[in-house]
Amino acid sequence: MLNFALFGAGRIGKMHARNLASHPKAKLRWVYDINPEASQAVGQETEAQIAQDVETILSDAQVNAVLIATSTDTHADLIVQSAKAGKAILCEKPIDLSIERVDWCRDQLQSYSVPIQIGFNRRFDPSHRKVAQAAQSGEIGELEQVIISSRDPSPPPKEYYLVAGGMLRDMTIHDFDLARFVLNEEVTKVTALAGTLFDPVAQEIDELDSAMILMQTARGKLCHINNSRHATYGYDQRLEAHGSQGMIRSENQQATTVERFNANETYRRDPLPEFFIERYTQAYLDQIDSFIEAVESGNPPSVTYEDGRRALILANAAYQSLESGKTITVSYA
Amino acid sequence: MLNFALFGAGRIGKMHARNLASHPKAKLRWVYDINPEASQAVGQETEAQIAQDVETILSDAQVNAVLIATSTDTHADLIVQSAKAGKAILCEKPIDLSIERVDWCRDQLQSYSVPIQIGFNRRFDPSHRKVAQAAQSGEIGELEQVIISSRDPSPPPKEYYLVAGGMLRDMTIHDFDLARFVLNEEVTKVTALAGTLFDPVAQEIDELDSAMILMQTARGKLCHINNSRHATYGYDQRLEAHGSQGMIRSENQQATTVERFNANETYRRDPLPEFFIERYTQAYLDQIDSFIEAVESGNPPSVTYEDGRRALILANAAYQSLESGKTITVSYA
Amino acid sequence: MLNFALFGAGRIGKMHARNLASHPKAKLRWVYDINPEASQAVGQETEAQIAQDVETILSDAQVNAVLIATSTDTHADLIVQSAKAGKAILCEKPIDLSIERVDWCRDQLQSYSVPIQIGFNRRFDPSHRKVAQAAQSGEIGELEQVIISSRDPSPPPKEYYLVAGGMLRDMTIHDFDLARFVLNEEVTKVTALAGTLFDPVAQEIDELDSAMILMQTARGKLCHINNSRHATYGYDQRLEAHGSQGMIRSENQQATTVERFNANETYRRDPLPEFFIERYTQAYLDQIDSFIEAVESGNPPSVTYEDGRRALILANAAYQSLESGKTITVSYA
Amino acid sequence: MLNFALFGAGRIGKMHARNLASHPKAKLRWVYDINPEASQAVGQETEAQIAQDVETILSDAQVNAVLIATSTDTHADLIVQSAKAGKAILCEKPIDLSIERVDWCRDQLQSYSVPIQIGFNRRFDPSHRKVAQAAQSGEIGELEQVIISSRDPSPPPKEYYLVAGGMLRDMTIHDFDLARFVLNEEVTKVTALAGTLFDPVAQEIDELDSAMILMQTARGKLCHINNSRHATYGYDQRLEAHGSQGMIRSENQQATTVERFNANETYRRDPLPEFFIERYTQAYLDQIDSFIEAVESGNPPSVTYEDGRRALILANAAYQSLESGKTITVSYA
Repeated sequence: MLNFALFGAGRIGKMHARNLASHPKAKLRWVYDINPEASQAVGQETEAQIAQDVETILSDAQVNAVLIATSTDTHADLIVQSAKAGKAILCEKPIDLSIERVDWCRDQLQSYSVPIQIGFNRRFDPSHRKVAQAAQSGEIGELEQVIISSRDPSPPPKEYYLVAGGMLRDMTIHDFDLARFVLNEEVTKVTALAGTLFDPVAQEIDELDSAMILMQTARGKLCHINNSRHATYGYDQRLEAHGSQGMIRSENQQATTVERFNANETYRRDPLPEFFIERYTQAYLDQIDSFIEAVESGNPPSVTYEDGRRALILANAAYQSLESGKTITVSYA
Repeated sequence: MLNFALFGAGRIGKMHARNLASHPKAKLRWVYDINPEASQAVGQETEAQIAQDVETILSDAQVNAVLIATSTDTHADLIVQSAKAGKAILCEKPIDLSIERVDWCRDQLQSYSVPIQIGFNRRFDPSHRKVAQAAQSGEIGELEQVIISSRDPSPPPKEYYLVAGGMLRDMTIHDFDLARFVLNEEVTKVTALAGTLFDPVAQEIDELDSAMILMQTARGKLCHINNSRHATYGYDQRLEAHGSQGMIRSENQQATTVERFNANETYRRDPLPEFFIERYTQAYLDQIDSFIEAVESGNPPSVTYEDGRRALILANAAYQSLESGKTITVSYA
Repeated sequence: MLNFALFGAGRIGKMHARNLASHPKAKLRWVYDINPEASQAVGQETEAQIAQDVETILSDAQVNAVLIATSTDTHADLIVQSAKAGKAILCEKPIDLSIERVDWCRDQLQSYSVPIQIGFNRRFDPSHRKVAQAAQSGEIGELEQVIISSRDPSPPPKEYYLVAGGMLRDMTIHDFDLARFVLNEEVTKVTALAGTLFDPVAQEIDELDSAMILMQTARGKLCHINNSRHATYGYDQRLEAHGSQGMIRSENQQATTVERFNANETYRRDPLPEFFIERYTQAYLDQIDSFIEAVESGNPPSVTYEDGRRALILANAAYQSLESGKTITVSYA
Repeated sequence: MLNFALFGAGRIGKMHARNLASHPKAKLRWVYDINPEASQAVGQETEAQIAQDVETILSDAQVNAVLIATSTDTHADLIVQSAKAGKAILCEKPIDLSIERVDWCRDQLQSYSVPIQIGFNRRFDPSHRKVAQAAQSGEIGELEQVIISSRDPSPPPKEYYLVAGGMLRDMTIHDFDLARFVLNEEVTKVTALAGTLFDPVAQEIDELDSAMILMQTARGKLCHINNSRHATYGYDQRLEAHGSQGMIRSENQQATTVERFNANETYRRDPLPEFFIERYTQAYLDQIDSFIEAVESGNPPSVTYEDGRRALILANAAYQSLESGKTITVSYA
């Protein structure tokens, strides 16, 4: 049984709170948010205590682990403070938008031996996971190509854009991590094309809403990511791996297995999940399972700090490619 | 919040115990089984108290509701005792194998006003439910035909056969209820063909392992059920409704959305669920939701005692058709 | 190379004319129809000569084979005349609506040794054919159950109803033959339920528009057929075979492999084929191939006169079941 | 009715010969191949006359059109000679491997007004065509992204590699054309990553066997192509278009609609088509239809010489990107 504290009680924090509250091996002991109403809402729903500050939580010896779901700019500090306090850490992605801050935080962490896991939830999706396993087990032979289609249902509001750090660091970062997970080799080359094709808000603030990326590993494996900030048909999340002996793909999901046929429709299924909370329900649960198991067993978490760092390095490389018109050779040093 | 007692801690009882234990509006207060080891196992897993007898449970004023998952021959007595004790009742199907006992029990229940719901779980399956809703909402126009495919993965052991009351009363009873649920009109005619095609155990004890049934309502709607006691590809559960404006069907499920392609395989998906506990996970949860909601609101349960009785009457009619070589006109009096 | 004469230049005759005209091993030498305009239309399109009467054709020694696509009531006489003239015969289904006429014609045919094939086109559909092959090759083990879904897009006009001989002899006859083809054993029991659920014209003339049938072979294999005279979503033609080692099904077809996704649609494919000419295009071509091959090789045709006769016997048994409320034991004597 | 001469009687030439021979509006009058056995084989099968040289054909006033299916290095000369002779031209892709030769040929063609169509067969595939139509009709709103998956079943022999001009000019050229067809705007930027991942022959002669490409139009539309010289599961040909109002995709095809289920298989369909002749059967027929219609109507062919030229320019740009590590700005001047 692990006693958790939750930092951040926004949309994703609330979901984590519920998952922790109903987890047989977790207890949600504290919740903290800069917005007291948000933490109160979680407190009422889950019996977690409401903390007025971070220190109260970190000084509570009963707390074994923290889940950081605050705004991105606070992640690095909270990680370092929690590490100092000896708490195991599950931190939402991205670690930080600045690679310098990420490196600083990494250096700080050298002094502490707490387990830290980055919240790349998609690695835990049962369908995506089977693709990754097939890519690594030899089920499809030697892996050659990976294709990731990842499209959000609709563009975020302006305020979100302004703090998100850019599409590739905010949205594509999940796909960079998923690519690394399936490729199981470091990416050495990145090239990208992107644009603002439909969203007037993105246009106004000079943001991207559409992107395509190519990557290659040292041994030549190829990977493609396609992204869009909108998809009328729902949250599109697909993954495809090609190997020397076959192909395996993870297709989109529907809530039921119903198919409809009439004068205008043939094989119409239920809509795709609305967004990540609906799509990755099981993945978020399995992510917590995996974290708890790592903490309890003393094994290293399955998604490391360095995984978080390298996904950001790939996002930065893609931006560099867009700006320079060059294929970027990636350095992780 | 409803305090539950569970009668019966076998395979399905254990599943109900877990569902009740993790339900936000339920508390599993007691468990009873004639086999003390079975009740202890549930007790350890769920914090329910272990009762030595039924009376202890029924005399506990804190108990609001009982879930009856004992062997079929004990259902009727437990229903009557629980009703006398004023407990709300959720009873596994079938009520009893004998229509005389079912009628006797019904007569006893006249004196008590406790809510009673029969455990026809398939009505709560989200996919089947959408088919039923489309059949009744006009989404497919006026309903005309219903087709139910329902195949178990493998035949039961001899001991099960001997107490199960015959394939049509044990297995097809679910399909009779599902037919009634989707048709939403009483069946007036039943005809059937069946046989023992593959199972040597069934052969030995003169049991069926394969069956096909046709039914018709007073207004002419048609329904077909096909059943088998085995299916190498898993637990096959499909439902199809045809109306004047279209068709809707509930197809089988897979654990993931993965599709595989190689030299020998094209579009291979994950296997079907193994059996009812895996297939109807959500349905069993929603069944309890529905029961709790009915008890708390005072509304009648959505699956009534009479529903349980009429499914048995249809099973009996199908047997009569097999024996007499006639299309049976069904009477529910 | 076979020289053909075509009797009947209606809708299906026209299609046959085109198929014969473009077949590398066939030449369409003559066309005859009681309606001279119909035969002229075919003549213009295909270079076939237009015959004023049947005799001209049958006395032409160059004619090797006749394809009979006239109205059903003329089939038996044309078969006998063509057999007398020594022509190979490909005759559209049904042979005749009266079993007495069919038997009379059969007796006449004893004296002649011409090859005769009945036009049960569905046996030649590549998808249905694979199901039948799997049922017989052991691919699905020992065959146990067959399920046929067969639904026309929309009810015929009154004039058609009046000469068609009843739904089961006109429409279901195809399914009776398909059942026999897949079962590969003679049906010994038939029971049916049917009604008039939607078509006011059928209602007016006391015809059926909806039917469900069950059949069983001597060795116990089970078969279900469901039929409707309408389906808003197109011509629904599905076939499913269950064996001791697995299941194989032939699903509906679409003109393309396109799938559409938008705010209202998920996985929408192209519509089903409109009707039999669009759905069984390849089957009609393969039927002619098979006939030509039989005639040229001297091997018996793959669909025999007796196949035509027995499908009618099953249709008659189903009517008997509807009228008597009994499961009919079928006799083929 | 158009009288055709066929140059080239290899694998694809033979297929064209059959298609022309059975086309109601075409007559295959001549066939020529440098290998007399090849032209004889076609002559026997189709009643075409066998020409000893090109001149015999081009001086035959009865010949209206030529279909050029010879080796790539002969295309440009044959085009110019045929144009001089006033014949309409349908020429297999690519026009030539050298853009200088293509430009020279284009300049020569200025003097003649014969219709010329390049054999980009995929534009005529009914499924791909629906995607292109949806992209242009507004069915999916404003087009934003196109994704092309195109994988050959197995690598070619060494001799083929040595004359094919490189993977991007030989294989991807089809995808460049398909991209242009669906995008319906000129591509202005190209970037690519590629490698030799599996084929020892390709390795030996320093050829590619795997490639991924990104492209963008002046208005920002994005396109991705992924290619491989092998796919154990057959000839993989998929196309996907994303617009502001939805997505449409053309999935792979199977020969039948059969689905298999057993202890090891769930939903297994028939294999994908083996290669282009099986996959694009209908497309090759519709390509000839389209060419004949253009010639007879005097309208410009739907796939122009310039289309052939621009696909080559894109292939060259992709090679440039691979060599320079840069995103190439494409010039069509």
